Amino acid sequence: MKNNGANKIRIGIHGASGYTGSELLRLLARHGGMEVTMLSAERRAGLRLAEVFPHLAAMNAPDLVSIDAFDYDALDAVFCCLPHGTTQEVIAGLPAHLKVVDLSADFRLADPSVYAEWYGQEHRAVDLQREAVYGLTELHRTAIAAARLVANPGCYPTGPQLALVPLLENGQVEGEDIIIDAKSGTSGAGREPKQGTLFSEVGEGVHAYGVAAHRHSPEIDQILSQAASTPVSVTFTPHLIPMNRGILATIYVHLAKGASATDLRATLTKRYYDEPFVHVVSEGVSPETRQVRGSNHCLIGVFADRRPGRAILLTAIDNLLKGASGQALQNMNLMCGLTETTGLEQLPLFP
Amino acid sequence: MKNNGANKIRIGIHGASGYTGSELLRLLARHGGMEVTMLSAERRAGLRLAEVFPHLAAMNAPDLVSIDAFDYDALDAVFCCLPHGTTQEVIAGLPAHLKVVDLSADFRLADPSVYAEWYGQEHRAVDLQREAVYGLTELHRTAIAAARLVANPGCYPTGPQLALVPLLENGQVEGEDIIIDAKSGTSGAGREPKQGTLFSEVGEGVHAYGVAAHRHSPEIDQILSQAASTPVSVTFTPHLIPMNRGILATIYVHLAKGASATDLRATLTKRYYDEPFVHVVSEGVSPETRQVRGSNHCLIGVFADRRPGRAILLTAIDNLLKGASGQALQNMNLMCGLTETTGLEQLPLFP
Amino acid sequence: MKNNGANKIRIGIHGASGYTGSELLRLLARHGGMEVTMLSAERRAGLRLAEVFPHLAAMNAPDLVSIDAFDYDALDAVFCCLPHGTTQEVIAGLPAHLKVVDLSADFRLADPSVYAEWYGQEHRAVDLQREAVYGLTELHRTAIAAARLVANPGCYPTGPQLALVPLLENGQVEGEDIIIDAKSGTSGAGREPKQGTLFSEVGEGVHAYGVAAHRHSPEIDQILSQAASTPVSVTFTPHLIPMNRGILATIYVHLAKGASATDLRATLTKRYYDEPFVHVVSEGVSPETRQVRGSNHCLIGVFADRRPGRAILLTAIDNLLKGASGQALQNMNLMCGLTETTGLEQLPLFP
Amino acid sequence: MKNNGANKIRIGIHGASGYTGSELLRLLARHGGMEVTMLSAERRAGLRLAEVFPHLAAMNAPDLVSIDAFDYDALDAVFCCLPHGTTQEVIAGLPAHLKVVDLSADFRLADPSVYAEWYGQEHRAVDLQREAVYGLTELHRTAIAAARLVANPGCYPTGPQLALVPLLENGQVEGEDIIIDAKSGTSGAGREPKQGTLFSEVGEGVHAYGVAAHRHSPEIDQILSQAASTPVSVTFTPHLIPMNRGILATIYVHLAKGASATDLRATLTKRYYDEPFVHVVSEGVSPETRQVRGSNHCLIGVFADRRPGRAILLTAIDNLLKGASGQALQNMNLMCGLTETTGLEQLPLFP
Repeated sequence: MKNNGANKIRIGIHGASGYTGSELLRLLARHGGMEVTMLSAERRAGLRLAEVFPHLAAMNAPDLVSIDAFDYDALDAVFCCLPHGTTQEVIAGLPAHLKVVDLSADFRLADPSVYAEWYGQEHRAVDLQREAVYGLTELHRTAIAAARLVANPGCYPTGPQLALVPLLENGQVEGEDIIIDAKSGTSGAGREPKQGTLFSEVGEGVHAYGVAAHRHSPEIDQILSQAASTPVSVTFTPHLIPMNRGILATIYVHLAKGASATDLRATLTKRYYDEPFVHVVSEGVSPETRQVRGSNHCLIGVFADRRPGRAILLTAIDNLLKGASGQALQNMNLMCGLTETTGLEQLPLFP
Repeated sequence: MKNNGANKIRIGIHGASGYTGSELLRLLARHGGMEVTMLSAERRAGLRLAEVFPHLAAMNAPDLVSIDAFDYDALDAVFCCLPHGTTQEVIAGLPAHLKVVDLSADFRLADPSVYAEWYGQEHRAVDLQREAVYGLTELHRTAIAAARLVANPGCYPTGPQLALVPLLENGQVEGEDIIIDAKSGTSGAGREPKQGTLFSEVGEGVHAYGVAAHRHSPEIDQILSQAASTPVSVTFTPHLIPMNRGILATIYVHLAKGASATDLRATLTKRYYDEPFVHVVSEGVSPETRQVRGSNHCLIGVFADRRPGRAILLTAIDNLLKGASGQALQNMNLMCGLTETTGLEQLPLFP
Repeated sequence: MKNNGANKIRIGIHGASGYTGSELLRLLARHGGMEVTMLSAERRAGLRLAEVFPHLAAMNAPDLVSIDAFDYDALDAVFCCLPHGTTQEVIAGLPAHLKVVDLSADFRLADPSVYAEWYGQEHRAVDLQREAVYGLTELHRTAIAAARLVANPGCYPTGPQLALVPLLENGQVEGEDIIIDAKSGTSGAGREPKQGTLFSEVGEGVHAYGVAAHRHSPEIDQILSQAASTPVSVTFTPHLIPMNRGILATIYVHLAKGASATDLRATLTKRYYDEPFVHVVSEGVSPETRQVRGSNHCLIGVFADRRPGRAILLTAIDNLLKGASGQALQNMNLMCGLTETTGLEQLPLFP
Repeated sequence: MKNNGANKIRIGIHGASGYTGSELLRLLARHGGMEVTMLSAERRAGLRLAEVFPHLAAMNAPDLVSIDAFDYDALDAVFCCLPHGTTQEVIAGLPAHLKVVDLSADFRLADPSVYAEWYGQEHRAVDLQREAVYGLTELHRTAIAAARLVANPGCYPTGPQLALVPLLENGQVEGEDIIIDAKSGTSGAGREPKQGTLFSEVGEGVHAYGVAAHRHSPEIDQILSQAASTPVSVTFTPHLIPMNRGILATIYVHLAKGASATDLRATLTKRYYDEPFVHVVSEGVSPETRQVRGSNHCLIGVFADRRPGRAILLTAIDNLLKGASGQALQNMNLMCGLTETTGLEQLPLFP
């Protein structure tokens, strides 16, 4: 499916009333090759977009409808921003001509038994799960370009995978003792009202959650294991930070025999040299989430530890961009034969 | 000076290491008709832009130099982001072929004696002060388009002036008892280290400052007096809010005899109907600064007070965009004969 | 009811799982003359306090029970932290021997018709409403000391009333054109999950709400009218600020003929000279909410406006202390014949 | 030196204009056995305390003087809140009758060569360095009680040491692969104006700093090595969080052969069973810094990792209390023969 001349890719978004939905809309508003054609939001059906997201009032967008009201014949592609669990059945019901990027967790885990273990239910679209391509763009570009269904990566796995996959493939870090300590803003927790994400409960403090039990752990393991060609199991601890956007991951690794932090830096710099969105920062510089806010960028920092044989990697992304909607659009661009960076050109917003 | 074909307007920025400078750079990075050619930053001369603003590392920009190192022959236009007081002499020394938008306060006050009263020194470029056009774009578009030197409005005056000028011109609000209670984020205070803008001194609290004595008061008075064709003096109180960006102004007015809040809404809606950046929000809706963050938008809300004969107006802007660099670029576009919205198309970033 | 020797006042708290409830508990934990005996929390009945408020884990407190499980014979006094509307019936059912401080809005408005107008329902305990004493401690101390039922003031009215009542009583400000622009932290919105108080919806921004329609308006009018001995109706606009605690009120007044800001300062300084919790700050100083955080203090600033005949007053409180639980305890101390400041001695927490 | 009857310990504070100084003052204001007698602040000498810290205006405190103006004969004890480097000479000049708690880093490192390596200069009071007792109260209580000079621990080391020392002493965790990922609020960076701690530079973002090079690393190593009876070197990464107060440390450890996370929990629970300030939280609970804000508490959480043979420990403190001034007062109480908890009884402030 090419974008032929004036014909824009006609886009539908399921679950458009959440933060990933609104972020997609913000990006698509400036995307010359795509046109937002339908928006669903089950409980907000009937509302105008500006009522749900006043910041998008200046955008020319269709009203919100229910999922069932979608006319798929009028669409070329769909972004699915629904909660995990309910997503798989919606996607199973989509006609085959549609390109689909799913932002939920439903198709990220290749092994149905791992899915069942971590999500507490059998997968209800196992064939699709097999078909789905994992959408970490820089690492799976060719497969994504050819895919019909892309499982967009989780917000937490994205940064660490970008940093670790090249190093594991090169055999420069040990797969056995990887620790990922991640710090996230609150938008990753979604727009559903919960006590735990009230301002008064998140402001002026920090805490870990899902310690040793977060569902992004098996997703990280899966990709790192492929890269290492051997089973890798990481320690992963997410923390909630009083900020809206951003994920910083601090990654502690053992160097493989003979490798140095300088080698890691060289590998990553080379790997991402031509990438528009992934940047290895200068030696001694620590990446900050505010330096990627609102952009699809991922910054990677590399430090030798003071203890021999260890290194510290730092990755910074905007969880709603490279950690969700930005990468989703990057993938959809590829799937639709468009320039990968279209709609993602803006620089970070600081301060 | 038209942008002829491939020839881009060559832009210099004095004072590029502050927040208004970096915001201009962010906008210019996506401006097809302008090219950032020279950057000065007196104390950071010699540094690469990425060292001062890592979030702009992906931008292709020249290194920082000292003010004296500018070769004005290689420039078509200059943005001046220097501190007030020092600006007037720099601008007085600029060659006549340059278009200049000054973001300092130096040329905003038309009356030299008012300047001297509020800034504690005589103005050293009185002729230029007379020549300078006040740059509230929507209200002075024609004069701006013809100007060589534009005094970009202060961050606080912008929203209230946009709301009040049409109403005073129409005689719908009294000029005598206007109260402007404004709430600003911290970026308006600049990047110079001061105890008062440390995170620990601003976080988790709110306070007023410059009560009855802020230098934006005479600037507001000047424009409102012109609109009312009679001297207007407002009460203006700025407050510092624990956020990076945004100014909300809550404006209390007396209605002129016979006028209602509905009339005010009608006037403003009509006045700004075709404006790309100024929007009157729906009845009953309260504009929020987060709905304009990162954009050049100004939202205006209109409420009848519960007390007869009074109304409450609310304006929300991003202080670095419509309150500074966004409006500066909007003005420069006009001055250079470019489409006014170029480089300012992006939607707000929320959350 | 005196605190005789070792016998502590036995305290029950209805609605202990909200922020005002937890703040009372924090204060009572260090109150030598009171003992927390029973706690209710309808939907959290059966839980230990530490499960609902981990920060109070070190406190020796009873488990949460349902409202119906209270044995009032074992209590001397009750704090009622229930939502407005449901409170009046609970309090109507309390035995007569109990001292009661109600933190809801149910008994603040003396006129049942005003209550019905603003709360959309008839009052169901009109006799009690008549009996209830309005609990702005510094202004109604004698009546409070003799009361059985005290209606604790709203968070917003407290500061402005403390500033304005002495001035209206003295005839130094006009009652006709008072504007109160208030800025509050999020804890005032309670612990119930709502989209509007999620971190992502409140962080990095500011907005007004309840413009010209907030229920604290008639409460302010009522007390100011008493002070002025003539009907007073104020303009009151609350704003939500990205901080947990604190209310700053910026108050714009017309001076009465012959009065100056200096006179206002003198009146307030004299009136509160011996008060432990209300302080008029030095001339030129602007009070900040962070300077009262965690304390029962109210700071008052007085400024002459640049426009003749007007003044600007600023009040800062912690909405959970002087704006709710602190003042409630201050009142209960009085009602129980204890030293008024007991349990309220701590200084503000900064930063 | 006992507190005999009415005679209060006479306290002096050097460096009273910083955050640790003001926090000491807040605590001492409610300390029945100590009296603040002298305060120094080199650059603020001559000011009243309320001018430097308005939140302490209600406190009866002496004016600020220069260091040289101290009359040590009128003092029994001194808290030293001066910057590291300058502190050692000031303390070397103190008369021998004074009890001293030093909150700087100058006397924390027992080995002068380690000091020289990390602080870039030779120590100028090596004898005192030898005499100084490291003041982690719960672990060195006896020595502290007998000491004349106590080196108060750094803010970062405190939590991790409390968690790790008992486990290393018991041989339940390996000393070889300890990773401490710490997240701190901004007050730890002090009140000196620096670009890096401006609100606009810290708000809405997170970053690591001092990666593999922070000066608290050797301090942690020193105490853990003593506990393990073998050299221990940790990986320590501090991060700056947009909040005023609090440090959360996420600690990754290898279990010793045969040990389980349950064993670690049992050891820590037993060790701190009677401690008033150190609390092991319930299984599955993740401690939050907001649960200790304003208190001297340290919360410890223990989790089994999903990878066998590893555990995750979490510690939460308020950096200005248990991480600085609270622990300093706790130590001084011990040194003066007072009840250790005096002045430190208040519960955390939440939200």
